[in-house]
Amino acid sequence: MPNKRVELQKQIHDWINLHREDCTDFLRNLVRMPSTQGNEQRAQFLIADKLLELSLDVDLWEPDGAALATHPYFCSPRNQFTGSPNVVGVLKGVGGGRSLLLNGHMDVVPEGNRAQWHDDPFSGHVVDGMLYGRGATDMKGGNVSLLMAIEAVQSLGTKLKGDVIFESVIEEESGGAGTLAAIVKGYKADAALIPEPTNMRIFPKQQGSMWFRIEVKGRSAHGGTRYEGVSAIEKSIAVIQHIRELEVERNARITDPLYANNPIPIPINIGVIQGGNWPSSVSDTVKLEGRMGVAPVETLAGAKEEMHRWMARLSEKDPWFEDHPPTVEWFGAQWVPGNVDPEHAFMQVLMEQFRAVKQEEPVIEASPWGTDGGLLTQVGDTPCIVFGPGITQVAHYPNEHIELERVFEAAEIIALTIIQWCGLADTET
Amino acid sequence: MPNKRVELQKQIHDWINLHREDCTDFLRNLVRMPSTQGNEQRAQFLIADKLLELSLDVDLWEPDGAALATHPYFCSPRNQFTGSPNVVGVLKGVGGGRSLLLNGHMDVVPEGNRAQWHDDPFSGHVVDGMLYGRGATDMKGGNVSLLMAIEAVQSLGTKLKGDVIFESVIEEESGGAGTLAAIVKGYKADAALIPEPTNMRIFPKQQGSMWFRIEVKGRSAHGGTRYEGVSAIEKSIAVIQHIRELEVERNARITDPLYANNPIPIPINIGVIQGGNWPSSVSDTVKLEGRMGVAPVETLAGAKEEMHRWMARLSEKDPWFEDHPPTVEWFGAQWVPGNVDPEHAFMQVLMEQFRAVKQEEPVIEASPWGTDGGLLTQVGDTPCIVFGPGITQVAHYPNEHIELERVFEAAEIIALTIIQWCGLADTET
Repeated sequence: MPNKRVELQKQIHDWINLHREDCTDFLRNLVRMPSTQGNEQRAQFLIADKLLELSLDVDLWEPDGAALATHPYFCSPRNQFTGSPNVVGVLKGVGGGRSLLLNGHMDVVPEGNRAQWHDDPFSGHVVDGMLYGRGATDMKGGNVSLLMAIEAVQSLGTKLKGDVIFESVIEEESGGAGTLAAIVKGYKADAALIPEPTNMRIFPKQQGSMWFRIEVKGRSAHGGTRYEGVSAIEKSIAVIQHIRELEVERNARITDPLYANNPIPIPINIGVIQGGNWPSSVSDTVKLEGRMGVAPVETLAGAKEEMHRWMARLSEKDPWFEDHPPTVEWFGAQWVPGNVDPEHAFMQVLMEQFRAVKQEEPVIEASPWGTDGGLLTQVGDTPCIVFGPGITQVAHYPNEHIELERVFEAAEIIALTIIQWCGLADTET
Repeated sequence: MPNKRVELQKQIHDWINLHREDCTDFLRNLVRMPSTQGNEQRAQFLIADKLLELSLDVDLWEPDGAALATHPYFCSPRNQFTGSPNVVGVLKGVGGGRSLLLNGHMDVVPEGNRAQWHDDPFSGHVVDGMLYGRGATDMKGGNVSLLMAIEAVQSLGTKLKGDVIFESVIEEESGGAGTLAAIVKGYKADAALIPEPTNMRIFPKQQGSMWFRIEVKGRSAHGGTRYEGVSAIEKSIAVIQHIRELEVERNARITDPLYANNPIPIPINIGVIQGGNWPSSVSDTVKLEGRMGVAPVETLAGAKEEMHRWMARLSEKDPWFEDHPPTVEWFGAQWVPGNVDPEHAFMQVLMEQFRAVKQEEPVIEASPWGTDGGLLTQVGDTPCIVFGPGITQVAHYPNEHIELERVFEAAEIIALTIIQWCGLADTET
């Protein structure tokens, strides 16, 4: 048996080695299609073509925004997805094996300030083994690893027992409506993997998050007699400090060893402050916008409720807030936290293949950001692990890039994982 | 002699009583001309006509912005005054008396949100003895008091010994370039009075002020790993608290009894805060804009220097500021503080006429805001006192209005002050 495995691994490795150029070209083509929100169609058609070429059953559809918007986990700035299709390809197994869902998002965040890019933000140029361009690391590189893995497995000429479901989704960057649409359509499996940029670490748990907006009220007055007013700017300082205390309290509860090296496992970030409109007036309103981290073991609803309860206690510190309570609303994006037991069978399979390929112990952590994995696990009944070749540090930044070597390495690990998890039809492995 | 004064006072009182309607019409016409910045011309022409009618020597000119802009006290968002003339009228005395400068500004602040006005913002309608409209209280009502006073004095048919210089200036609301232009042109006197809205209180001292902008720096990071960044929002809280301490220190030095009832004689107001642009990013910049009050005994330069020295001490509290010192710039408007000794002879004359007309003690205070009086006193060598019929509380607000009774009363007090200060040519008063 070990010999058989070693042989299989060699076959996979050789196939990947032989197809480096082709796959690099494919990734370059993907990166050259700026698939920002609303512009995913061309890239999704390319994926669909590839899936047809691999003889998968292809399902390409534009999510029904009106229907989807009624789902309690729907979160998107839009509710109309014309021109923004999801693509799913199913590699049917012969039966008797475990199914695996491989999910990656095709949407990329905008390129931002072009002046900060050394090259065209969608160049796909390769320099020193790095492929550059928006989406290279987050997460077209990971998507290509998935497709290479499937093709490498197919190259063995042997069918799988369990099904492999490949999903190329839209809307991850704005709240997961693409993956939600696939869940609603019925796609599920015994386990899932998302190759978001983890720098080859394995994340069985992911921090969820939600955006909030708080409005703090004051009372305006002329700056020369500022004591006649109540500064919303000063009151917002009290609100910020109060939220800091909530962050301390929430993080003190986190005992998960996966967070051992994380100084603030579930941070509450206040990213935007805006108040007042005249230097010599006392401001009567300050708006705060932020992101609340949600622990793997929490639900979004539970975390929201804690925030509301905490804010209601502001008046204990300052009676001003009794008659002028800040309003809290949840807006924009949200990501459901992910939580898979590190002892889960799929974790064991993935770690085993990692060791086989990398000849080292994988780093197991909890991610400081959410992915569509939370939806798959919490809503789609499909335990999802995040593991991918990209680097978080360059995601969403100018000069985003990915090391091609990692794309191939991840493809190899994933191919072996497919084989081990789904099982080959004519072996007992 | 007392009989002569009583008789004079009666003559002035009767003339004013007789001309209430005319003067109300004149004020209404002024208010109906929306003389916001850049739109002062029509109102200034009306004033020039009136001065010609009163046989004063009229000087109407558009300040030379290029020349004026080189003056160290120049402060304006524009340096081109085409269509925005100043008007000065001089009532020449026969000699041997003290001269008096009467200054009022013709510019008004914009009407703001029209929905908050119960009537047209420039209606000039009179309801229950109140004349409504932008500029009624700040300060066209006061200007009409000045013109009534001059006309009432002329009605006596006796010349004055000292000159009376009447100035209708532009740009008070944005830093005093109109009054500065008149100073530069050579207009000065032994004393000055500005009828800004003091609600009939007498202000020998006025708080000056300047606008500042502070930029606080942080280091951006993703909100999910906010501990990898440095929040400019959190650092700005330290800056705000530091400025609060400066305010405490500066106000502890104020011992002037005129500020006895003022909890913060020279406040530092932070009116605007703006930082960050994404809820889930750590903000790397926060902008604070505010107004620094300047004590009557201070210079603008001295107060600026103290602020810069104080900000340089931030690093004592937090080493972050050592390598990332906030920048401080001075922008927008500034008002030079005013400071006339309450024992000044002109104060005594004004107070005496106040008592004669009102039959009560005047309230002597220091104003919590600046006027062009600071420029007249500090730069124009003309000690200036502020005393007028309007109410501060409605200035710059919707539904601005003035009580006409106070306009007439102020006119009477000012007419008697002109007589007492400049002297009548054929009397020994």
